[in-house]
Amino acid sequence: MSPQSPLSKSGPPSTASPERSQLIDRYRDVRRLSEELCRPLEVEDYVIQTIEDVSPPKWHIGHTTWFFEQVILERFEPNLKRHDDRYFFVFNSYYESFGERIVQANRGTLSRPTLDDVMAYRQAVDERVVRLIETLDPGDIPALTELLILGLNHEQQHQELFVTDIKHNFAANPLRPIYLAGEHRPALPYPEAEFVQFEGGVHEIGHHGDQFAYDNESPRHRVYLNDFRLSSRPVTCGEYLDFINDNAYSDHRFWLSSGWDFVRQENWKAPLYWLHTDDGWQVMTLGGLKPIDPNEPVVHVSYYEAAAFARWAGKRLPTEAEWEIAARAQNASPVDGAFLDDRVFHPVGCRIQTPAESGTLHGMLGDLWEWTGSAYLPYPGYLQAAGALGEYNGKFMSGQMVLRGGSCATPRDHVRLTYRNFFQPEKRWQFSGLRLAEDA
Amino acid sequence: MSPQSPLSKSGPPSTASPERSQLIDRYRDVRRLSEELCRPLEVEDYVIQTIEDVSPPKWHIGHTTWFFEQVILERFEPNLKRHDDRYFFVFNSYYESFGERIVQANRGTLSRPTLDDVMAYRQAVDERVVRLIETLDPGDIPALTELLILGLNHEQQHQELFVTDIKHNFAANPLRPIYLAGEHRPALPYPEAEFVQFEGGVHEIGHHGDQFAYDNESPRHRVYLNDFRLSSRPVTCGEYLDFINDNAYSDHRFWLSSGWDFVRQENWKAPLYWLHTDDGWQVMTLGGLKPIDPNEPVVHVSYYEAAAFARWAGKRLPTEAEWEIAARAQNASPVDGAFLDDRVFHPVGCRIQTPAESGTLHGMLGDLWEWTGSAYLPYPGYLQAAGALGEYNGKFMSGQMVLRGGSCATPRDHVRLTYRNFFQPEKRWQFSGLRLAEDA
Amino acid sequence: MSPQSPLSKSGPPSTASPERSQLIDRYRDVRRLSEELCRPLEVEDYVIQTIEDVSPPKWHIGHTTWFFEQVILERFEPNLKRHDDRYFFVFNSYYESFGERIVQANRGTLSRPTLDDVMAYRQAVDERVVRLIETLDPGDIPALTELLILGLNHEQQHQELFVTDIKHNFAANPLRPIYLAGEHRPALPYPEAEFVQFEGGVHEIGHHGDQFAYDNESPRHRVYLNDFRLSSRPVTCGEYLDFINDNAYSDHRFWLSSGWDFVRQENWKAPLYWLHTDDGWQVMTLGGLKPIDPNEPVVHVSYYEAAAFARWAGKRLPTEAEWEIAARAQNASPVDGAFLDDRVFHPVGCRIQTPAESGTLHGMLGDLWEWTGSAYLPYPGYLQAAGALGEYNGKFMSGQMVLRGGSCATPRDHVRLTYRNFFQPEKRWQFSGLRLAEDA
Amino acid sequence: MSPQSPLSKSGPPSTASPERSQLIDRYRDVRRLSEELCRPLEVEDYVIQTIEDVSPPKWHIGHTTWFFEQVILERFEPNLKRHDDRYFFVFNSYYESFGERIVQANRGTLSRPTLDDVMAYRQAVDERVVRLIETLDPGDIPALTELLILGLNHEQQHQELFVTDIKHNFAANPLRPIYLAGEHRPALPYPEAEFVQFEGGVHEIGHHGDQFAYDNESPRHRVYLNDFRLSSRPVTCGEYLDFINDNAYSDHRFWLSSGWDFVRQENWKAPLYWLHTDDGWQVMTLGGLKPIDPNEPVVHVSYYEAAAFARWAGKRLPTEAEWEIAARAQNASPVDGAFLDDRVFHPVGCRIQTPAESGTLHGMLGDLWEWTGSAYLPYPGYLQAAGALGEYNGKFMSGQMVLRGGSCATPRDHVRLTYRNFFQPEKRWQFSGLRLAEDA
Repeated sequence: MSPQSPLSKSGPPSTASPERSQLIDRYRDVRRLSEELCRPLEVEDYVIQTIEDVSPPKWHIGHTTWFFEQVILERFEPNLKRHDDRYFFVFNSYYESFGERIVQANRGTLSRPTLDDVMAYRQAVDERVVRLIETLDPGDIPALTELLILGLNHEQQHQELFVTDIKHNFAANPLRPIYLAGEHRPALPYPEAEFVQFEGGVHEIGHHGDQFAYDNESPRHRVYLNDFRLSSRPVTCGEYLDFINDNAYSDHRFWLSSGWDFVRQENWKAPLYWLHTDDGWQVMTLGGLKPIDPNEPVVHVSYYEAAAFARWAGKRLPTEAEWEIAARAQNASPVDGAFLDDRVFHPVGCRIQTPAESGTLHGMLGDLWEWTGSAYLPYPGYLQAAGALGEYNGKFMSGQMVLRGGSCATPRDHVRLTYRNFFQPEKRWQFSGLRLAEDA
Repeated sequence: MSPQSPLSKSGPPSTASPERSQLIDRYRDVRRLSEELCRPLEVEDYVIQTIEDVSPPKWHIGHTTWFFEQVILERFEPNLKRHDDRYFFVFNSYYESFGERIVQANRGTLSRPTLDDVMAYRQAVDERVVRLIETLDPGDIPALTELLILGLNHEQQHQELFVTDIKHNFAANPLRPIYLAGEHRPALPYPEAEFVQFEGGVHEIGHHGDQFAYDNESPRHRVYLNDFRLSSRPVTCGEYLDFINDNAYSDHRFWLSSGWDFVRQENWKAPLYWLHTDDGWQVMTLGGLKPIDPNEPVVHVSYYEAAAFARWAGKRLPTEAEWEIAARAQNASPVDGAFLDDRVFHPVGCRIQTPAESGTLHGMLGDLWEWTGSAYLPYPGYLQAAGALGEYNGKFMSGQMVLRGGSCATPRDHVRLTYRNFFQPEKRWQFSGLRLAEDA
Repeated sequence: MSPQSPLSKSGPPSTASPERSQLIDRYRDVRRLSEELCRPLEVEDYVIQTIEDVSPPKWHIGHTTWFFEQVILERFEPNLKRHDDRYFFVFNSYYESFGERIVQANRGTLSRPTLDDVMAYRQAVDERVVRLIETLDPGDIPALTELLILGLNHEQQHQELFVTDIKHNFAANPLRPIYLAGEHRPALPYPEAEFVQFEGGVHEIGHHGDQFAYDNESPRHRVYLNDFRLSSRPVTCGEYLDFINDNAYSDHRFWLSSGWDFVRQENWKAPLYWLHTDDGWQVMTLGGLKPIDPNEPVVHVSYYEAAAFARWAGKRLPTEAEWEIAARAQNASPVDGAFLDDRVFHPVGCRIQTPAESGTLHGMLGDLWEWTGSAYLPYPGYLQAAGALGEYNGKFMSGQMVLRGGSCATPRDHVRLTYRNFFQPEKRWQFSGLRLAEDA
Repeated sequence: MSPQSPLSKSGPPSTASPERSQLIDRYRDVRRLSEELCRPLEVEDYVIQTIEDVSPPKWHIGHTTWFFEQVILERFEPNLKRHDDRYFFVFNSYYESFGERIVQANRGTLSRPTLDDVMAYRQAVDERVVRLIETLDPGDIPALTELLILGLNHEQQHQELFVTDIKHNFAANPLRPIYLAGEHRPALPYPEAEFVQFEGGVHEIGHHGDQFAYDNESPRHRVYLNDFRLSSRPVTCGEYLDFINDNAYSDHRFWLSSGWDFVRQENWKAPLYWLHTDDGWQVMTLGGLKPIDPNEPVVHVSYYEAAAFARWAGKRLPTEAEWEIAARAQNASPVDGAFLDDRVFHPVGCRIQTPAESGTLHGMLGDLWEWTGSAYLPYPGYLQAAGALGEYNGKFMSGQMVLRGGSCATPRDHVRLTYRNFFQPEKRWQFSGLRLAEDA
């Protein structure tokens, strides 16, 4: 990449105003991270799709670019020629407002556009976006900024999917490719788990203020909660092994009815990526196959497994309101897990050698998404935007459960305490685990 | 049936104590109603099952009997011989705790046991139950009563299913059989719809007290609500026709994403049982095919259709807490719709000629189940019972939405303001409609 | 049924001409047999359908009647009113020429028309057919006769299906109903099997002459065969047990590729209706469950199993030409198996106590249909009729294999040496077995 | 590739004996052709698989190499180390004898081994095979030769599949990639079609002699045929358009029953790759989209379509015996169509400007595979080999139809008059068309 490349970190100083210049920097930083994530891949790795849920890396690269072209350039440069009309069919994800698109399950059957084509598309759009920021009428800058920030958050979401999708694709390959080799450090044991009490009553949750947040985090609103207790740490692989060894996967009493259907149809016996080998339980990671570490938080479990584990343990999952209120109560000193920025792509678990003060919640942010017992529904007073952006979150408010906290595949500056992630209760390919709760 | 039959209304006076005698009467009344519902059927009608959701009438008759034998007689007469061991396989519905059972979708492939066999089973169990009530040790009467009341509520639920399942079976038949002929009276127009305001704040919902309620209605607990408004009446067929005629079934903007999938896969164009004929829209009822009556409440819509209608109308669905609080606020004068007891098997809509006072909610109970915007989840502090009875409600708390109010197929004394019905969001074969809400 | 019933055997003497009278007698005889087959059934048994391949007994009764109304009455009485227009939708099987029809898999979801309705339909059509025979213009009698004979052969085919379909429905029922109770007589051992040699060269096969035959048996034509040998008897259950015990169901080497797919997908371990119990292998029959009799011919095997058995045994299946030529060569003294007329509904195997002459083929006709290695294709010079009757056989000449000989569910006067039965290679619910062949 | 590469055309002169040297040359020629076919592809094109029937180009390259390693090197060098043990799982196609293998439908989900890995595998095996030929004990040369010839014929089959699979993958891509650009020359019109008569009687068909042939072409055997006539040329696109324009795709009367199911389920309206555009019918080719040429032979039709066309035309398809006898009768002067060697990858139709003598059959070999009316079954006396090579052809003798003649994707020296190709009757992705026949 030449020094003049708009993606280059050390490019020539922008002559734009400080505000515009900041926007360009932010744009380039986020876009560059996506390209860094590509580095370990072979050309062939960009093409494949092992299940409908995952998308080919090439598609992620193209789709995030499409979003900027479709949502921003089409609006501010309506008369300019599209890079390639056919990409509007190929790289649309689920926006009905933008017309027909390729069937999701068929994304892995497209060899063209090639990786080079997609990278050229990416570069061309980047150049146009940067030029747009530099030259747009000042009165339009606020509107542009709002959409750019949305586009960059969108790209961050796809950075996480990029990593989790590659993990799925590699784990299905009999050659067990390694995305990022590295020495594996065993996790430290967590301090002994305790159930930390929080007071109920009328609380407020949800987003407010000027910072970016998705529409589904608003409006901030009141909720009434009973007193509750939250475990000081996520459930570990060691605890999950106890659950497995207690034959919980063969005992209907712990399972929701639709979860039990999945257990039997899919023949679930353990979290996704766990393999029972002659050397005991092993787990496929982005660094290759390794033995289960009992001190690590368990990940790649479905909501059904999380709920069954909680019932087996005589506890329950927290609601999203409980999670958010507890997380905010400890805002001063979150003891975080790993994020995408750490490039470990695996939960690290406990990071502190000396025990924290009693009552500390460990790992609320990072390492893994925590399933809550809350269905993904609109907050009271939620307004779904009109047009295509209304499709971003609102139309998925059915049949999914909320997860909180962010994972080792999430960019650190993408999460926040009000962030609502959501997946269908049977999904397991995300870094999803759980933390127990109980009534006070 | 001989006059000595335990099912006979005018049977010989019971010699039991008043408490036992009352229990016997209640038992006989509920059981007799199931048999009355059978009268219009031919033998062949008892056997069939058009989709997995519905069960053959013969199966309902046997299953409700099985429940008394399995849950009550097996407990209080553990050494007595079962009526027929094979029925424990055939008539188990979904209780994993009771072992293997016939695949639900195959219930309609069993010609044996015959109707006569099943009726004999029913009579034999009835005789044993009555004898048990008469002779049980007084100390066990409270435990027996509790289970009997549960069994009778269970039977009432199946009375509703019996009717709605026959409707589905008959509607699928090219000969369009009629379950209950009768003159159709056009519905009166409702008073003009208004949005009645209710005050928010901390309220209590859920069951308390001595009366029977399902475990999922407990515990009573506090919720915080914003101020809200509820429409004074359900959405009518006339309004729903406007929605159809506005091409809402072809416009993705009104639909949840998974709902839109159903619209296209199932080619939905109107509520279930609506037929577009040369004479305009007609609807299949248990009394045969008849023209759409614009004043009637619309029924047989899925949650997806209810939510799409609300979005189209610029409103939303109420939450179950809003519904319950509003219903209780008007407890003094509910203006009811039809119940099973009325034997019309179709919503009647408005029943009053002179307009009610402004602010009156019409038809909160009866006529139709109203979809709410609430996912079916445990109330805070809910405890799922151990053993088979824990399977009654708790294991279904995933992927379903709550409906409130009771329908024209529900026994009147089965519903209450805290009653939580629940179905998957795509189901349409129940008498399910909607009432609009909005933020205050 | 009144003595005047056209179905009554001892009805009043017909005043028709001898030729017409004979036709009426034949018509009544065949139709009466169908009704006799109904006698052991309960009303509920008429309604059900356990898999798409089988049809409800009620449907067979209606469909054979429909055939006479549709093919004969509609032609000779074009202005007369149909019995019920809706039956033309309900009782059409696969005739595209006659328009839309109910989806085959849904035949078991129709409770109406009731059995009584269908029997009334049957009686009404019978009366009209008899009257037609009595009164038709003499010049039209040959055309009528031809269609009547076709209709009666069609009814005989459905008599066989009626029996085999009930067997499937009953075998799927956990109560194991019995169609026809009776003492089970063990089969005699066959004389020791020998491979009987036949001379090759140019032979003729296929139908010729005035007797009725289906169009697919024509034209008679020449074939060239190598010398070949045919086993003197069908494969027995004892021999098939050896095949099972040699783990042949787990050994891909014996199986056709598409057969191996079925073995694994359907988890085949033995013929249909064989059950491995604590008391060893048992088999479900129309007389109930009974132990495997090693001397009986094996039935309810697919073509794939027949071909795998032959390969396991180091032999092959005969072609249909070989079968027909061998059967004709021994025309003088066929040693038959059971037919429908014998009312045993199960293969009887060897019926002679003293050994037949060496070189005798046992059981070529009756007991079981013998899979051949011939695909069901048109004979050279075959002409598919125009119109609906062209749909009778011709359109199925793809993807099916030929079976020869007739079974214990086939009316004796329905089979002949040129008769070509055909089923898809995975079907097992017919009384289908095999006889081995080898090159000379 | 270094000059010493065994794949290099101008490699150093072999020092092997003339016989061995010839074998090496043949081996290198065939292997080199596969690599030439790769040249127009991008790396991404090697990875994808649009339907289960097609395989990724990378897989073809690996699988043909695997065949040499598995069948030849494993036999003659049993103690040598495999190139990569995991490839035995990845590149096995359907050989049960060689153990587990990747599910066929998942071949397109493997990004690893990469193209470079597979090419390295190819080169390594080539080197070992050449060294084996050079050094093997002379007594083993005949056995080696036999297997090598089989392996090279196997590779030729995959060369054809390679081309037809790429066509399918490219046609499914909205960017419509071009495999081989080139000027399109319109086809010459064929001489007027005539039905050429052949005499029946006892003929011989099948392979005999020393030349290589697959086991399914043997043994040579006698058949009896009636006199018959064969069309002098394949059916053209122009004729097929008449069939389409006569609404034959909506008229059940022309279709086999299972074919009619496909027409409706798959919504067939024309041959595969035909597109109805604003500019009329166009067809996707390996050279891109082009208008239908009415003089070209029609290709990419299923057996069902071929049989329906024949019935519509009042003719029939030839049997494979008729085809072979007619082809041999004209052996002296076949007027061929295109082969893979011609690099046009599309049927060229008539190649002669001056009309051939009356009675000449045009295009019996090359251009397209001709569907026959014969099921793919063993010839009389066919012996399926033991072990893995017995899986090559014999286990597929069920449910498929025979095609004859070779196509524009078949290597010219791979076909012969006795060659039996076979596919399921619904397959359309091969270059398959038809020639009409009739009874004399």
